[in-house]
Amino acid sequence: MQTTFTIATRGPGLYEFTREVAQWVARSEPRDGLLTLLIRHTSASLLIQENADPEVQGDLRAFFHRLVPPADDPAMSYLTHTYEGPDDMPAHIKSALLPVSLSIPVQAGRLRLGTWQGLYVFEHRHAPHNRQIAAHLA
Amino acid sequence: MQTTFTIATRGPGLYEFTREVAQWVARSEPRDGLLTLLIRHTSASLLIQENADPEVQGDLRAFFHRLVPPADDPAMSYLTHTYEGPDDMPAHIKSALLPVSLSIPVQAGRLRLGTWQGLYVFEHRHAPHNRQIAAHLA
Amino acid sequence: MQTTFTIATRGPGLYEFTREVAQWVARSEPRDGLLTLLIRHTSASLLIQENADPEVQGDLRAFFHRLVPPADDPAMSYLTHTYEGPDDMPAHIKSALLPVSLSIPVQAGRLRLGTWQGLYVFEHRHAPHNRQIAAHLA
Repeated sequence: MQTTFTIATRGPGLYEFTREVAQWVARSEPRDGLLTLLIRHTSASLLIQENADPEVQGDLRAFFHRLVPPADDPAMSYLTHTYEGPDDMPAHIKSALLPVSLSIPVQAGRLRLGTWQGLYVFEHRHAPHNRQIAAHLA
Repeated sequence: MQTTFTIATRGPGLYEFTREVAQWVARSEPRDGLLTLLIRHTSASLLIQENADPEVQGDLRAFFHRLVPPADDPAMSYLTHTYEGPDDMPAHIKSALLPVSLSIPVQAGRLRLGTWQGLYVFEHRHAPHNRQIAAHLA
Repeated sequence: MQTTFTIATRGPGLYEFTREVAQWVARSEPRDGLLTLLIRHTSASLLIQENADPEVQGDLRAFFHRLVPPADDPAMSYLTHTYEGPDDMPAHIKSALLPVSLSIPVQAGRLRLGTWQGLYVFEHRHAPHNRQIAAHLA
């Protein structure tokens, strides 16, 4: 079975969608199988991360902002693909560093994630976007 | 078919488990298919890396320690999620940078890894842990 | 179904092979399923990236060259695995940071990539190589 999840984002950061995915898996076939997700964009990522303390999400965003600063930061003066704004090429770089596809075994209709693992879209752009995630269960 | 591998770690570094996986695949069905692994943690990673020279593993650990220093390093003073120790938030960051799931085609009961590729758990925490890897073969 | 794609590289950078993959998927079974790719090397990567503006590819290469400089750069003096040349250990590090396997849902014989997404081999070594990518469709 396949479906598409659409996640609305409003600027850089993590957007959890574990519940939407778990609910779809719970009512789909097969009961035991493999779920695969692919984000259909090159300026946002998928991520499995801790879902307990929201400070983790802020720290992740801060780390990647420092590792890949905006194109108008002097450290990034070597970038050439800048006409779509200072957050565009850094978004492509972050989308290379972070997952574009993820696979999760399913047992008895449940994702075999660990206790503290949640599913996120990691948005890298400032403007609001609707991000599409293609899903496949078999 | 599904199973769970449990890998005991004793501090940061790479722990190879190619043999355990290859033996399970060799005695499982189907003979031709796809193996998928998911590490059920947010402070350790999966990795496919060179299995020939152990210096590669030390250099990988050194690089990631420099890229993401402990939280008590002045360069990381912006971190806020620090109450679980200086190696906790850097472990979450490393688990975002390195693979959480991996998929490997299987032919005639054998993993189609390259000659020099081995499967590893990359532990990011200092305390000993038992790391669970969910495996799916279909 | 399984196959192997072989991509010839001539130094660091991105080599698109979307067309080869799409053509194989278009004439293979099943029509609806999941394509998985695994690069069988530890010094080159797979990547899904923007296929519109070639400047993106140059900027990606420049970023990763700065993040992981050659072993003869003073910043990398801590590396020990250096006897295969200054581009060898950095290639292993880049192959840890970038994808080794990718999974893409397929519908009606077509990859469900986004409009701007292309499939690339990201070569990290200077010498020419033939890179093998194992492919599985089911």
